[in-house]
Amino acid sequence: MLTKSTIKLVQSLQDKKHRKEQSLFVAEGEKIVSEVLASKIKVKTLFATSLWLQNNAINVHKTIECIVVDEKQMKQLSAQPSPPQVLVVCMIEQVELPLNIKGTTLLLDTIQDPGNMGTIIRIADWYGITRIICSENSADVYNPKVIQASMGSFTRVALCYTRISDFIKRHAAIPVYGAMLQGKSLYDVSLKPDCMILIGNEGNGISKELIPLITNPICIPKRGGAESLNAAIAAAIICDTWARSVS
Amino acid sequence: MLTKSTIKLVQSLQDKKHRKEQSLFVAEGEKIVSEVLASKIKVKTLFATSLWLQNNAINVHKTIECIVVDEKQMKQLSAQPSPPQVLVVCMIEQVELPLNIKGTTLLLDTIQDPGNMGTIIRIADWYGITRIICSENSADVYNPKVIQASMGSFTRVALCYTRISDFIKRHAAIPVYGAMLQGKSLYDVSLKPDCMILIGNEGNGISKELIPLITNPICIPKRGGAESLNAAIAAAIICDTWARSVS
Repeated sequence: MLTKSTIKLVQSLQDKKHRKEQSLFVAEGEKIVSEVLASKIKVKTLFATSLWLQNNAINVHKTIECIVVDEKQMKQLSAQPSPPQVLVVCMIEQVELPLNIKGTTLLLDTIQDPGNMGTIIRIADWYGITRIICSENSADVYNPKVIQASMGSFTRVALCYTRISDFIKRHAAIPVYGAMLQGKSLYDVSLKPDCMILIGNEGNGISKELIPLITNPICIPKRGGAESLNAAIAAAIICDTWARSVS
Repeated sequence: MLTKSTIKLVQSLQDKKHRKEQSLFVAEGEKIVSEVLASKIKVKTLFATSLWLQNNAINVHKTIECIVVDEKQMKQLSAQPSPPQVLVVCMIEQVELPLNIKGTTLLLDTIQDPGNMGTIIRIADWYGITRIICSENSADVYNPKVIQASMGSFTRVALCYTRISDFIKRHAAIPVYGAMLQGKSLYDVSLKPDCMILIGNEGNGISKELIPLITNPICIPKRGGAESLNAAIAAAIICDTWARSVS
């Protein structure tokens, strides 16, 4: 049965503070929940309409607590404009900093828009990039808007929050690609299979303290009038160039 | 002086119906307004704080009606979470369908998210693509969220709304690139300088009726687990490939 205190708990998880206190987060919607259920993420409670449960019971592990809710109750639990058929409360597990960083690592320097953060996670997942290091002031991966924009890709990409400069220095042998005005055209560059790709903040670009740590400045050649590209768009084009280089 | 009826008019322009009736739209914020003032767009009224006017009067043509407002009034006019220093009400001018389509034309098939639409306009502008043809059920370019996400690029890109199939048939000699699962890898394709790039809907992809009109099916090679890419991200990668091909 759905109690008032449960509704309150689920609603509170829209705030980072409460997610941290409870070590819990929310994922919503059929597509995203199906990805969560197929992943290693531990689901504490699943809330669903009776119809969803009828059709999907086979995918729900016996140990998961299931609560049947009606549309009105789902509306109370959900952070979405139109309430979904299913919503899960999951455990946040501490992600350890990777030691072996074969392949590409994305470094996100102060990406603050949750939509951008989620979109970048989805891009990483598309290109088979499974590691993202975020500066501590970046958007929280468990923010409902990040979860939504990532379309389930957060289940396959490990995100860590740490000081990016320390991380780069710890792996000094690995080239660091970063977009800068005076960088080399991406069309003339072949990215190394093992590398780091540094993406700067939406408004301010790459932090001053990180610029000297870029070993390979690159740029996306511009042909028209726009002053800049959105951070997620820049990330996509650089990741695509990496994929071209190694394929 | 700012009257109640003016406030009501500006607020009403958040709705497409009223924008159409009045042939007016709103643009907000220093960056976007500066692009509007530098463009051919006709500004009817400019609302600004006295500070903004002091610093920017030189860029405002004498014929533009200027109304000084305080922060509280700006909050009433603005559709943004934090009210800007300046906001303009502009005339909507009918854009004629292009006859000569040298270079690239983007075709947007039912792009419904205003954020995606604005981001795609910004991408087009970055790559020097000045023509976008949208299906009639696509997001309205004058939606405040589109204007915002385009970051001023809507001043340099001409958008027309029409039946895409008719447009393609009228220019039958021009190749049409469209992303499809069984398409040729973008990494093995050189896009023609004169071409059309067809971008499908966020959830459903390219409409059934348009698929037979794609002359060159392409695909963005996938290496990881994500099922798909966001429509704006796909548009960016295809436009970038076009730019690589012609540069």
